[in-house]
Amino acid sequence: MNDVFTLLRSHRSIRKFTDEAVDDDTVAAIVACGTSAATSSNLQATTVIRVRDRDTRAEIARIAGGQQHIVDCPVFLVWCADVRRPGTAAALAGATLVSGMTEQFIIATVDVALAAQNAVVAAESLGLGICYIGAIRNDPQPVSELLDLPEHVYPVFGLCIGHPAQDPDVKPRLPIEVVLKEERYSDDSDEFAIKNYDETMRDYYRTRTGGTKNSCWSDEMAGLVGSERRAHMRRFLADRGFEMR
Amino acid sequence: MNDVFTLLRSHRSIRKFTDEAVDDDTVAAIVACGTSAATSSNLQATTVIRVRDRDTRAEIARIAGGQQHIVDCPVFLVWCADVRRPGTAAALAGATLVSGMTEQFIIATVDVALAAQNAVVAAESLGLGICYIGAIRNDPQPVSELLDLPEHVYPVFGLCIGHPAQDPDVKPRLPIEVVLKEERYSDDSDEFAIKNYDETMRDYYRTRTGGTKNSCWSDEMAGLVGSERRAHMRRFLADRGFEMR
Repeated sequence: MNDVFTLLRSHRSIRKFTDEAVDDDTVAAIVACGTSAATSSNLQATTVIRVRDRDTRAEIARIAGGQQHIVDCPVFLVWCADVRRPGTAAALAGATLVSGMTEQFIIATVDVALAAQNAVVAAESLGLGICYIGAIRNDPQPVSELLDLPEHVYPVFGLCIGHPAQDPDVKPRLPIEVVLKEERYSDDSDEFAIKNYDETMRDYYRTRTGGTKNSCWSDEMAGLVGSERRAHMRRFLADRGFEMR
Repeated sequence: MNDVFTLLRSHRSIRKFTDEAVDDDTVAAIVACGTSAATSSNLQATTVIRVRDRDTRAEIARIAGGQQHIVDCPVFLVWCADVRRPGTAAALAGATLVSGMTEQFIIATVDVALAAQNAVVAAESLGLGICYIGAIRNDPQPVSELLDLPEHVYPVFGLCIGHPAQDPDVKPRLPIEVVLKEERYSDDSDEFAIKNYDETMRDYYRTRTGGTKNSCWSDEMAGLVGSERRAHMRRFLADRGFEMR
């Protein structure tokens, strides 16, 4: 459709970066693009912690399962959902933060994701590569302590940014017919589409790994949603003031 | 920095649209830009229901507090977090969906938000305007019934898309210094910045409303996080299989 469509359709995660720095003004401009995204009732729940310290990064990389790009990338940001700040504002208007509501968790988390994705688009428009790091939630308590996060703030994901030192293929997605439905939900043709997509992904992994990885989407999903993954999250969030009531 | 930065910094919600249609191929291309966004472990939890039916839209508009643009916009999409589909895939690989985990809720919700924001950027790059509709969560059960959403699928937000028939100013945001922090969380200067921002917002509302709206960010936040807003969400989500355990 236009260059922006081409940019958006070209996304792939980058996990190897050159040593070239990204200057501070550029990082600030990228994050400012993030905060220009829509925000639920102007909540602006996004707080970004830029981590430069190598020891802090190494600890986060260890928590994230040994992802060395967290240490090596020029810019590493932790995107946090921050209900404390609107609570501070509410106090200035004579009100008290009512915390722990599930709805509040949703609007704060969505705010962060919208902002981060805008920042990602901005970064990629400059030719930079990015990688989201959901694995900070492997053990979010020490991450929160490293970053001095107070109550009512939680780390949603990390983000590596830098100049790409690799050029991986774009990963195939489910066909649009599966994702975009008319008027009502129906999954009549989903199983057929998933089986086709499984073959696409099997070929994709085989080609990328020289035949060593024999997996498909269904296999991946069995691992991802077929287990009590990160079962600590409920307790972790409750301890931080997100009780989900 | 470049045209994409300009585009991202120019976002404002559009709530009045011309009658000009947006063709189906364009809508599909916009949603496909959405699904090109990063997705947690390739979960692809985004399902989009396009609602054309005027009666369905009118009912959703009523639930959303009488937002007529939901009825009048050329394209109305409901963005859903869908754990059912990865569950179907897991079953094909011999596994069973383990539902209700808080972490699963997070990755599905974040997936939807990343995809929607990419779609928004794509739409805005074509000169279209958009408005997120979080207010479908005012009463999400009838919305879910109208759209035949099965268990393990929930409607996160709606999205109006169309050609703008208004040209509102960009809403000021908190300064970047408040949002982007170095190494560790600190809110030492937040209160000062919030008070300044309150004045900015007071001027913004006065100017836009010819002096009739006298409000500021702190006032807004007192209403937004100072009450048990949408307290039904916990029960609603639990009933749909998102128990948050």
